[in-house]
Amino acid sequence: MSIVAKTFTPRNLQLITEQCLKKRYFSLASSANQRMSEIEQKFKLPKTYEGSQPSVWVEYIQLALDHKPLNLGQGFPDYPPPKYVTDALIEVASNRNLHQYTRGFGHPRLVQALAKLYSQLIGRTINPQKEILTTLGAYEALYAAITGHVDAGDEVIIIEPFFDCYEPMVRYARGVPRFIALKPKLTEGKRLSSGDFVLDKAELEGLFNKKTKAIILNTPNNPLGKVFTLEELTFIADLCKKHNVLCISDEVYEWLVYKPYQHIRIATLPGMWERTITIGSAGKTFSVTGWKLGWAYGPANLMFNLQMIHQNSVYTGNTPIQEATAIAFEKELTRLDSSECYFNSISTELEPKREFMGKFLQETGFKPIIPEGGYFMMADWTPLKSQVDLDSETDKYADYRFTKWMTKKVGLQGIPPSAFYGEEHKKLGENFVRYCFIKEDKNLQAAADILQKWKSGKN
Amino acid sequence: MSIVAKTFTPRNLQLITEQCLKKRYFSLASSANQRMSEIEQKFKLPKTYEGSQPSVWVEYIQLALDHKPLNLGQGFPDYPPPKYVTDALIEVASNRNLHQYTRGFGHPRLVQALAKLYSQLIGRTINPQKEILTTLGAYEALYAAITGHVDAGDEVIIIEPFFDCYEPMVRYARGVPRFIALKPKLTEGKRLSSGDFVLDKAELEGLFNKKTKAIILNTPNNPLGKVFTLEELTFIADLCKKHNVLCISDEVYEWLVYKPYQHIRIATLPGMWERTITIGSAGKTFSVTGWKLGWAYGPANLMFNLQMIHQNSVYTGNTPIQEATAIAFEKELTRLDSSECYFNSISTELEPKREFMGKFLQETGFKPIIPEGGYFMMADWTPLKSQVDLDSETDKYADYRFTKWMTKKVGLQGIPPSAFYGEEHKKLGENFVRYCFIKEDKNLQAAADILQKWKSGKN
Ligand SMILES: Cc1ncc(COP(=O)(O)O)c(C=O)c1O
Ligand SMILES: Cc1ncc(COP(=O)(O)O)c(C=O)c1O
Repeated sequence: MSIVAKTFTPRNLQLITEQCLKKRYFSLASSANQRMSEIEQKFKLPKTYEGSQPSVWVEYIQLALDHKPLNLGQGFPDYPPPKYVTDALIEVASNRNLHQYTRGFGHPRLVQALAKLYSQLIGRTINPQKEILTTLGAYEALYAAITGHVDAGDEVIIIEPFFDCYEPMVRYARGVPRFIALKPKLTEGKRLSSGDFVLDKAELEGLFNKKTKAIILNTPNNPLGKVFTLEELTFIADLCKKHNVLCISDEVYEWLVYKPYQHIRIATLPGMWERTITIGSAGKTFSVTGWKLGWAYGPANLMFNLQMIHQNSVYTGNTPIQEATAIAFEKELTRLDSSECYFNSISTELEPKREFMGKFLQETGFKPIIPEGGYFMMADWTPLKSQVDLDSETDKYADYRFTKWMTKKVGLQGIPPSAFYGEEHKKLGENFVRYCFIKEDKNLQAAADILQKWKSGKN
Repeated sequence: MSIVAKTFTPRNLQLITEQCLKKRYFSLASSANQRMSEIEQKFKLPKTYEGSQPSVWVEYIQLALDHKPLNLGQGFPDYPPPKYVTDALIEVASNRNLHQYTRGFGHPRLVQALAKLYSQLIGRTINPQKEILTTLGAYEALYAAITGHVDAGDEVIIIEPFFDCYEPMVRYARGVPRFIALKPKLTEGKRLSSGDFVLDKAELEGLFNKKTKAIILNTPNNPLGKVFTLEELTFIADLCKKHNVLCISDEVYEWLVYKPYQHIRIATLPGMWERTITIGSAGKTFSVTGWKLGWAYGPANLMFNLQMIHQNSVYTGNTPIQEATAIAFEKELTRLDSSECYFNSISTELEPKREFMGKFLQETGFKPIIPEGGYFMMADWTPLKSQVDLDSETDKYADYRFTKWMTKKVGLQGIPPSAFYGEEHKKLGENFVRYCFIKEDKNLQAAADILQKWKSGKN
């Protein structure tokens, strides 16, 4: 069968791309004999997962490896994490008794520390054994929360733009994602803030129905940086209660909120504890994304469902990493109100970086959206359209073409936000690029210089 | 609804137990209002996962915490791992640039090392990018291999006794496990070896049919310690080829084989590479079970399916742990043929422990099955039946009652092997207990003393 189709509809093109990608994978599998094709026929992904493709991260990490741009794409610091955190891991690694299996649902010392912290923050006593599960990154916590609750045909409301794994996770559970986009209020003239992006209340209300199993909330939001207000959260909470809907609250950036904004945990709203699973990440909390340690907390009956998925997919987490994280938490627990507490100092540390990026993007002609939280900034790149050769790239969405061209020709890499929208709304992301600003000052300066040079036509 | 049923059939009893367990979980979820029951109704595990219960590990770890026995239950060393391995983690933790996200499908340095090692062992060049996936323990590798291939209604052949997660993983994928037990050949009089347990060839052949998607092989086997022979593997391989069936080969104990036996990788048999996914574990290879790092290797088209499951459930692994494991592999790669290589020295180190355990179990009246590989020993405890008050425990299977009674009354903990059989064959495991012998000599001696004392009626 030829892979060259006669008419090039978008769906057609997508199929061709998928076939090419698959071909690349299969080409290695050698032995052109007949048996091979029998194997290919039979050993495909199960129907539920059909059409899965490498994610934007896989593609953009490869792009960075191939072109070596200044990389403001992926979300992690390019400078060392707090020394006491890495010291904790050295200390643990040196204790030769801390390298064997620990309790499957969470290392005892860590769940104790988490219970102590969140009991204070939530204002109720959290049971460390039954109301907390530690996971292999917040990613696995999301997977366990979604897979542990979403049944075939259940609807799950996802707010766009969203952290890109929510959609495949819901589909893998055979659920039906229902998307609603944050949209800008009219704000001509002034500099946009992530707070200018809001949900249409009637639209949100219209999505709730008998089939709605859950809503996934992400505050502070990645990629937009929006920190949901008490009023917004109350509106969501009231709908959850009215329609008996579960709230999966991804709060991995809970400590990354800029003044005067405040992180509010939806689990603390009246009647919400019993229907909320809240998710956190040591990678984000302590700037050690490579530790891949996360957690979920919530009422025991909901956590039981996550435990079962965890037990039958990974069983248990990493012992030294959990012990080291427990040590880090114990230290912070002694100084929660101090400005030295990393939970407080990190946003103070990042605020000037946010200001600097907002400024240099504006000066180069982007229209940045200043985030209230997180360490990403979305910016509208279309004012610079005339300087970009979009036609040199073949991707369907303009932001993919823009970011690829920029990586190759200008040497600066960002992430295309249409990856954070469902198929129907991808257009809403097309005008934007996402940059990450948890980077050394000298690298942010280098990014500014690259853009300045480009703007003045010296590229 | 009352949880006291009128007639006590086994299924009835199981339901009651499940309800009690659930009650324990729910009791914490407070607020006895009407909303709570609505929540309980709606937020259950999806149908596919219904009936999931905490595994034997969760139950027996709690048992150990409650009764503080000498614990020969779980499979991990109670003495330090090799110093150069923990030193590698100290070195990595000290490098403050090694704490951020790494490549999702495997840390580059680690997949290089794995490719180098397994290319030699398999006798073909393995592509580190496309033919290897690193995972969060061998456990996640099994999950990705099963979930990435088994579709609703597919049959999967599982050889009993089996590592207990195989069954729920197949069921979670909506597959149908088909069990076949290793059974002892007639060997009256002599000491049993794990090699005396064999598959009935006709029975195995009879399980293969059009619906068979995969067979899960585990050599060396946990809990029995059987190391499959070339003849046995060839028979399995021929059936896989004849019926176009995938082989998922769990080889986490690949280096734990006692002389004169030899580990054979089924992927090296003619025509098997293209249909085999082989799984390994850093936890078992370097005696650091708490590192929870595993891998799978195989042809790119099969690995693609695992990558997609991995990408959408956990995304990426732990950076420092993967780097430290790469360093450990690189060291071993320089001395693969030396007796100092840990891959060779570990079984030399364990062999006297195996001998010692076989001896003291025999002397106390057990009938041990001497394993050819791994670090577990199954032993028939029924000759000691008269000394045990089985009626003091209420579990359905006698091995659960035996091991619980032993933990509480004699102070020695083992694992009940019926947990490693499918429902229909659990009876085959009932006469046995599984003990782990990767334990300090003094603790094995203590176990011997405990049993000696018990036998002589001094308990
Ligand atoms: C919103 C959000 N949720 C979850 C995650 C995953 O966190 P982890 O690295 O702990 O798995 C990320 C990582 O970027 C994120 O941005
Ligand atoms: C046969 C077998 N496979 C897989 C595993 C899981 O290994 P890991 O700890 O690397 O997830 C074990 C652990 O006991 C095992 O015995």
